[in-house]
Amino acid sequence: METTSLSPALESAGLQGADIQDRFLGDWSGLTIGRPAIVYRPTSTEEVSQILKTCHRDGRPVTVQGGLTGVAGGGVPDEGDVVINLERMNKVEQIDELEGIMLVQAGATLQSVQEAAAACDWMFAVDLGARGSCQVGGNASTNAGGIRVLKYGTMRDSVLGVEVVLADGTIVSSLKGLVKNSTGLDPRNVFVGSEGTLGIITRLTLRLRPPMGTPSTAMVAADSFERLPVLLRNLRRRVGDALCAFEFMSADYVDMACKLTDTPRPLAGKPVWYVLIEAAGMPGESMDERLQDALGAALDEGEITDCVQASNLSHAMKLWRIRESIPEVLTHIKRAITMDVGLPWAQTASFLESIESELKAKFPNASHLWLGHLGDNNLHLLSGPLDEHEYEQLEPFVFEALRGRAGTISAEHGVGRLKKPFLTVCRSEEEIEVMRRIKKALDPKGILNPGRILD
Amino acid sequence: METTSLSPALESAGLQGADIQDRFLGDWSGLTIGRPAIVYRPTSTEEVSQILKTCHRDGRPVTVQGGLTGVAGGGVPDEGDVVINLERMNKVEQIDELEGIMLVQAGATLQSVQEAAAACDWMFAVDLGARGSCQVGGNASTNAGGIRVLKYGTMRDSVLGVEVVLADGTIVSSLKGLVKNSTGLDPRNVFVGSEGTLGIITRLTLRLRPPMGTPSTAMVAADSFERLPVLLRNLRRRVGDALCAFEFMSADYVDMACKLTDTPRPLAGKPVWYVLIEAAGMPGESMDERLQDALGAALDEGEITDCVQASNLSHAMKLWRIRESIPEVLTHIKRAITMDVGLPWAQTASFLESIESELKAKFPNASHLWLGHLGDNNLHLLSGPLDEHEYEQLEPFVFEALRGRAGTISAEHGVGRLKKPFLTVCRSEEEIEVMRRIKKALDPKGILNPGRILD
Repeated sequence: METTSLSPALESAGLQGADIQDRFLGDWSGLTIGRPAIVYRPTSTEEVSQILKTCHRDGRPVTVQGGLTGVAGGGVPDEGDVVINLERMNKVEQIDELEGIMLVQAGATLQSVQEAAAACDWMFAVDLGARGSCQVGGNASTNAGGIRVLKYGTMRDSVLGVEVVLADGTIVSSLKGLVKNSTGLDPRNVFVGSEGTLGIITRLTLRLRPPMGTPSTAMVAADSFERLPVLLRNLRRRVGDALCAFEFMSADYVDMACKLTDTPRPLAGKPVWYVLIEAAGMPGESMDERLQDALGAALDEGEITDCVQASNLSHAMKLWRIRESIPEVLTHIKRAITMDVGLPWAQTASFLESIESELKAKFPNASHLWLGHLGDNNLHLLSGPLDEHEYEQLEPFVFEALRGRAGTISAEHGVGRLKKPFLTVCRSEEEIEVMRRIKKALDPKGILNPGRILD
Repeated sequence: METTSLSPALESAGLQGADIQDRFLGDWSGLTIGRPAIVYRPTSTEEVSQILKTCHRDGRPVTVQGGLTGVAGGGVPDEGDVVINLERMNKVEQIDELEGIMLVQAGATLQSVQEAAAACDWMFAVDLGARGSCQVGGNASTNAGGIRVLKYGTMRDSVLGVEVVLADGTIVSSLKGLVKNSTGLDPRNVFVGSEGTLGIITRLTLRLRPPMGTPSTAMVAADSFERLPVLLRNLRRRVGDALCAFEFMSADYVDMACKLTDTPRPLAGKPVWYVLIEAAGMPGESMDERLQDALGAALDEGEITDCVQASNLSHAMKLWRIRESIPEVLTHIKRAITMDVGLPWAQTASFLESIESELKAKFPNASHLWLGHLGDNNLHLLSGPLDEHEYEQLEPFVFEALRGRAGTISAEHGVGRLKKPFLTVCRSEEEIEVMRRIKKALDPKGILNPGRILD
């Protein structure tokens, strides 16, 4: 596709040809497709609007890029695309220190938002491993989850308002920072989670939270997965709102993570499941005793078979090191697949039981390691090493196993390009029809992120 | 409009003529317009679908009714309307006691949902005065707030899934109970808060919470409104997540409420503003000491001038009696108007200061009483007695005063019919255009709740 249909001014503002670095071609999924015709890095909502007006007029497909840390291929351009990359719109514009509200451009990294909040004694609650590179606009577009959903919810719960540019260049500024506003459809509820297919989020009003205290941390062992929902249900009563992490891991995962990172195994014996548990109150308030009592009760009730509570920060970091060894594990078992499925608690144990043996039978040379955020209904599976054929087989195999279980093919990573073929596993024809109608209403020519989520 | 275009089976299923009782003609706003042609009280989603298919085919306007406790006229039918009243769809269908998830029909009252949750040691967190009559479908349609938003959020935060019938009768069942599901646009985010204009919610998946303990309660006094945001900011740090109510009231309101309900004035002296504060932990856990320390610090810092902490439940109920005297106050100052505006904290004090003197000048015979949920950005104004002319003048006057302040004309009551003329005070042309496009995409003939929110 030629770029000559762009106005000369817009054309000269973008990167073209050899100036388009490889970093604009792919994301963390590893997928690349082709070279875009032009890469824009606008510095204002108005510039995004101008670019989209031209693209809309000419029916040119646009790929929207944030920090390119996605793993579903959402930010990967097609050959000849116009790319709109938000990296230059990275300013924290304003902080209301009294109410705890931040006005920020979509290209600011999550970490820069966290740091700006902390600098005025507030906290931005969403946190995830890619914090240094991912952008808050991208976090909003995929409704990112991360490690604190149990206590603070997903990105949606931290976005009070959005400024969005529609496909035709219309700027919809809906940046009010109100907790309650019952005056019809709120744009943020449509655009958060829509993966850039309905509009480009250019600025956001974010909700900050009072800082939380140093967490108390423990690792526990359970002899069957069925114990874990019971444990979580009871911990939410024993520890209350202070409970902020409940990260389960299979024994295979913990063993490999400890070996690869030279971390001591956290518990003796042969646990079947491990859970990393955190509780945090206000700054200066220790949750040690409350967590200890809660775990004592869990031992008494037979919900867990063993536990160790971190005696200091360094001990806590060793326990978290295990949970955060995913990169090392993935490197070790490459070529590997990471999955991000979701299930109701009532379905999780039986799903695991049935699929584990099938995975072992069908992909016998691979390790299949499970971990996830039970409070968020979120299971991650790391499988590898896989040969080319197995690599293509595994994902569809797991997705099909989800059918009929009221689960999801993506709890937090998004659909993007890579999971689109499997959307019907978790969305009915009628749900997809609602998506289509709204897509058509907001982007009638289908120029925004075409080929993502829907065809 | 004739009813003959309905099929005979559907026609015989509805109430017509003299069988239509007056209770179907209006809601708590006091508005009535005309008599509907027919009132259906379906018992299933399929019946709602059948009725809507016929109405869609024939282009017949439909009014959707829940508990009819709304105050914006949303449930008030036009002459000749087809009414779909959800009162017979009132069953709690299923409770997952392990995960804390309830599947419920839209016509169940809020109170019945609360009671069903409590019966299995869970809590449904949304609560408001109309609990005995209002229905959870209506609560979702207006994204109801209520008295616990500070801790638990609005109705939106307690709805995990919805089943909706579109205008053309299509049933969109999206009842998954997943906390995280990043697979494109989630119907609940479109239909919650849309006041029945985009589809009829027939069933909901609700999120339950662990029960909360008996709250610790206090009433404090402040000598200017500017102190209150500072006090709230600091209480959220001193009391933490246990803080669950921060209900401010003007001295005029408290004086009148105490007099009318024969309740002793809670504090000596002449406070200018009162705030009712509540903190609650887990069952069995007392927050008395923590609240006492927090209020001691507030006194030391000059944030408040006086405070009293409830020494027992009966004392706490006396304090709440003041806050809950709105019905008595409204009867005393009738004919009165209740307003439900919202503002950022930074705008609230200056808004109050400027409008109070203007209200006194323009409506000199009325009392103007303020109260609200500061943590939710929500101010209620009770004004009366007003004569016919004043009654029509007051609301537009207050709404115009909101312009340019990043506020809202309705924080929790909704737009309905009565606030529609003022929507542009708080929504831009572009925001309204997004609403219009989505309305047209989902209800192309405009048969669902016409005349509400938008023309």
